[in-house]
Amino acid sequence: MPLTVEASGVFPIAPTPFNPDGSVDWTSADRLFEFYHSIGSDGVTVLGIMGEAPKLEPEESIGLVKRAVAKMGAKPIIVGVSAPGFAAMRSLARQVMDLGAGGVMIAPPTNLRTDDQITGYYAQAVEAIGTDIPFVIQDYPLTLSVVMTPAVIRKIIQDNPSCVMLKHEDWPGLEKISTLRGFEADGSLRHVSILCGNGGLFLDFECERGADGAMTGYAFPDMLVDVVRLQKAGKRDQAHDLFDAHLPLIRYEQQPGAGLAVRKYLLKKRGVIASEAQRKPGAPLSAKARAEVDYLFDRLSKLDARAKAA
Amino acid sequence: MPLTVEASGVFPIAPTPFNPDGSVDWTSADRLFEFYHSIGSDGVTVLGIMGEAPKLEPEESIGLVKRAVAKMGAKPIIVGVSAPGFAAMRSLARQVMDLGAGGVMIAPPTNLRTDDQITGYYAQAVEAIGTDIPFVIQDYPLTLSVVMTPAVIRKIIQDNPSCVMLKHEDWPGLEKISTLRGFEADGSLRHVSILCGNGGLFLDFECERGADGAMTGYAFPDMLVDVVRLQKAGKRDQAHDLFDAHLPLIRYEQQPGAGLAVRKYLLKKRGVIASEAQRKPGAPLSAKARAEVDYLFDRLSKLDARAKAA
Amino acid sequence: MPLTVEASGVFPIAPTPFNPDGSVDWTSADRLFEFYHSIGSDGVTVLGIMGEAPKLEPEESIGLVKRAVAKMGAKPIIVGVSAPGFAAMRSLARQVMDLGAGGVMIAPPTNLRTDDQITGYYAQAVEAIGTDIPFVIQDYPLTLSVVMTPAVIRKIIQDNPSCVMLKHEDWPGLEKISTLRGFEADGSLRHVSILCGNGGLFLDFECERGADGAMTGYAFPDMLVDVVRLQKAGKRDQAHDLFDAHLPLIRYEQQPGAGLAVRKYLLKKRGVIASEAQRKPGAPLSAKARAEVDYLFDRLSKLDARAKAA
Amino acid sequence: MPLTVEASGVFPIAPTPFNPDGSVDWTSADRLFEFYHSIGSDGVTVLGIMGEAPKLEPEESIGLVKRAVAKMGAKPIIVGVSAPGFAAMRSLARQVMDLGAGGVMIAPPTNLRTDDQITGYYAQAVEAIGTDIPFVIQDYPLTLSVVMTPAVIRKIIQDNPSCVMLKHEDWPGLEKISTLRGFEADGSLRHVSILCGNGGLFLDFECERGADGAMTGYAFPDMLVDVVRLQKAGKRDQAHDLFDAHLPLIRYEQQPGAGLAVRKYLLKKRGVIASEAQRKPGAPLSAKARAEVDYLFDRLSKLDARAKAA
Repeated sequence: MPLTVEASGVFPIAPTPFNPDGSVDWTSADRLFEFYHSIGSDGVTVLGIMGEAPKLEPEESIGLVKRAVAKMGAKPIIVGVSAPGFAAMRSLARQVMDLGAGGVMIAPPTNLRTDDQITGYYAQAVEAIGTDIPFVIQDYPLTLSVVMTPAVIRKIIQDNPSCVMLKHEDWPGLEKISTLRGFEADGSLRHVSILCGNGGLFLDFECERGADGAMTGYAFPDMLVDVVRLQKAGKRDQAHDLFDAHLPLIRYEQQPGAGLAVRKYLLKKRGVIASEAQRKPGAPLSAKARAEVDYLFDRLSKLDARAKAA
Repeated sequence: MPLTVEASGVFPIAPTPFNPDGSVDWTSADRLFEFYHSIGSDGVTVLGIMGEAPKLEPEESIGLVKRAVAKMGAKPIIVGVSAPGFAAMRSLARQVMDLGAGGVMIAPPTNLRTDDQITGYYAQAVEAIGTDIPFVIQDYPLTLSVVMTPAVIRKIIQDNPSCVMLKHEDWPGLEKISTLRGFEADGSLRHVSILCGNGGLFLDFECERGADGAMTGYAFPDMLVDVVRLQKAGKRDQAHDLFDAHLPLIRYEQQPGAGLAVRKYLLKKRGVIASEAQRKPGAPLSAKARAEVDYLFDRLSKLDARAKAA
Repeated sequence: MPLTVEASGVFPIAPTPFNPDGSVDWTSADRLFEFYHSIGSDGVTVLGIMGEAPKLEPEESIGLVKRAVAKMGAKPIIVGVSAPGFAAMRSLARQVMDLGAGGVMIAPPTNLRTDDQITGYYAQAVEAIGTDIPFVIQDYPLTLSVVMTPAVIRKIIQDNPSCVMLKHEDWPGLEKISTLRGFEADGSLRHVSILCGNGGLFLDFECERGADGAMTGYAFPDMLVDVVRLQKAGKRDQAHDLFDAHLPLIRYEQQPGAGLAVRKYLLKKRGVIASEAQRKPGAPLSAKARAEVDYLFDRLSKLDARAKAA
Repeated sequence: MPLTVEASGVFPIAPTPFNPDGSVDWTSADRLFEFYHSIGSDGVTVLGIMGEAPKLEPEESIGLVKRAVAKMGAKPIIVGVSAPGFAAMRSLARQVMDLGAGGVMIAPPTNLRTDDQITGYYAQAVEAIGTDIPFVIQDYPLTLSVVMTPAVIRKIIQDNPSCVMLKHEDWPGLEKISTLRGFEADGSLRHVSILCGNGGLFLDFECERGADGAMTGYAFPDMLVDVVRLQKAGKRDQAHDLFDAHLPLIRYEQQPGAGLAVRKYLLKKRGVIASEAQRKPGAPLSAKARAEVDYLFDRLSKLDARAKAA
């Protein structure tokens, strides 16, 4: 299904499951997408920064997109197509749309500095992939070193009708959401979907500021789905209660560099994927880190049990 | 009191209280240091990055150090002396030591890249300030863009006998603490104190990894004191329970750029300082952010009340 | 004399002469300013990046400004006042203006990224130092990592009447000069002086693009004076002939990091300063580098001799 | 022919010739490689940073390698294989070696900081492409933001027997060559070829410091060949005379960003390629820049004529 400005809810960032020998674990990939579908995700994002995309052969990347399309019902699939050149970006974008993807996500190259460089880059990217492909702006200064003001984001959206979503991952970022929704209220910006990343670390308030949901890979996307649902239903305290119970683990998983290993370990613990293996070069969890995650997981389970008993 | 490698516990990073007209609020400064003293802090750090030091006139900086020395009992005062040149660093360091400070903290300039550049810089800094002044390495890659490996930190410590402490603020940083304590265990590194920053966001586990405590400015340093005490007493679950209750607020305060305003707002709410004013250029809280902090504060108060009732 | 938008010609960036023991060599400082004055410089810049300013004690900085004022006739003295905080910037700026300086130069802090951050910073700086002090924008992305578009520079100039000059040191930078002068032609930008840096490496064409001259520390400022004069007189080929003869040495001196040592060595060779010493931490010339500079100096001398004979 | 540690002389960095409609101009590509071959180049480098590699479709990249192999006699072809992930790097490396390339060039990703990160990256890259492929370290801090000390380069070379060359493009870089050759003299480093970049701006002295030649794309590679030959023959003054005549143009072409347009324009002027077109996104020359290049070209031609007449 094509991605539109009405997209809302939770789009998990899918990790790529590997076997311990480094090959793609297609069975786990299928199970992962089925899991995302079953818990009420509204779509999924593949080949993102946390999807180990640069370690994949082209046919593996394509394979993942096909599985996602096949397993996620008619829900929109977003594919990360950021690349060092427009040739590769165009080629991947057109290919995955033909396979049934709903849209693509584009991150700015890390050497962009001025407002004009950033808006110019997106204009060129859209010219390269074609104006018919719905695209997502990835705003992630912590990792990409590119700082986009609300005015720059507005210009990209207004100049490019095929822009349908902002993947919001600035930090701090709450005021940015308010500013963008304020632009919309004053008529200077058309509506696009805003989904938030940063491992979900601020999802509680991001919803209250006007975000439509989350696009992140936290190992409990079912909780993210519930928090967004509760917030949309106006059940603020319940949303925060649920969110706060997860916060020790969210915070642990959100550590740059180490986070992917935590995420895969938890997804394995939960029975979703078979192995926590990363393709080389990877950063495996130390024994101490593993024990810490176990400890937080146990505390969360006890809280859950207590909540259900109550 | 001179700072030594035995330093342990909590050294709050003191903000500088201002009156709404931009002048230093000396009454609040006195009350702030009295507060830190009364809750069982083991020392205090002034003129740090979050202390708005570059906005102060030289005599104001000196005034703050004097107040800290006067109000904190015999506890060691650490003074941030990072400067674009060694002339200013030396001059400030010698001056504050004469006034009774216990040691100084030195951050690397943001343009350092290679291991040799970093160790070379600390060698020069020590030559500049003199080998008789106890100093703290500030390892804060997120803000300073300087990445120090454990081996680099070891070399600085081993080469410079006047190094007594690491202000640990890498992110992620838990493995770094374990590696450094491992160096100590295998005899390749002498013992120094490790106090952790990052707003306290990982203090629960940092203590377990071998850190001696916290050096950070979270608006509830009393909680930091309790967490460190509980961890030292081996009361792990209680430490985490207390910590987790604060985590929503810790996380909110730890946002770069916005954090200082949150911290001052909370200290004012708690009656410690009279105004949340920052000297220009400052970033005040929006009405929405203020309401969010109020909401988290109320939730924390209810949790506290419930905990006390239990 | 106050610096105005009519400033033109050559403003050497003065190095700070030191004795081999690290103390300031005031005799050489006097001789240096006399030299600049005698060769027809139109002003001078002190306490710039290449003036080792952060290594100076406050009273030494002030001393240098006083000498420059005393020795340069009524020519305008520009003083670098960039600082990590506005308190120090204000204090130094007001002090040197009282001593007779003509204006101050302000570089943006290296962490600025967006257009708004840059224009906002200059607004705050002007508020801090006062609107009565003529100031120079230092645009030097290679060293400062801050990229200012022509539109950003225009906004700073238009918003701040006390801006009188652009120190132009972008690289590449020729189109930027043309764009700014184009803004002036189309009425969207008032006239300010543009003096160019980068060690003079593009001075030949910068003059042709509309720059008013040079602000740089190349060890033969007399040549810079002649090139600017020839270009103003429309003697293009002669200007290039003279410039090209110096280009091997200009290029050699313009190497980042190593350049200051080359510059001081050449000024010593020319009898202007007594020692090439840098205050610690410095980067002295290797024996090989010294021999290379000697070789280029000799080749230049032979070319000069031949030119005079012709 | 396989690339070995004995490689020496000039390896031009080949631009990719395009037709004005953006398609690859294969006729010009053939003529370009024939030109490089005929002037006495010792090899050629394709798909480098200045070869617009990221703008090429995979089959175009392969096509260029095939042409180079076919037209350059048995001379070694170096292929740039830097990529965001090791999957793409491995795949391209193995493919071009099968087609007859002599070796590959690998640049470090821009986010590497510490010594260990850099040496670790090259270890992983070699593991990915296989230890049987001769490779070149690309040391280019100005563009890549990765700073490699001589000790780090030594470790990469010593740890990886398949490393045969250093593409030296540090700036300043003369001392680095001397240090590396000093390592070789003291027995701590085996011999590898060192070819220099930076548009040739320091080739005169780089040869004297121990470099084996140049790997750069200056539009007069015939001059580079002559300078290296003269230096090897011990004709120092003649080498410098020839070099200095080109320096105004070398300097002009070496401007980051603008340089490729200058290079293509000059190669077109010289009749080597049919069009100066860059594939989008490109930065064409302004009319003023074009006139400046014409002016420098004419001055060079007159000097040449005079030199031949003498």
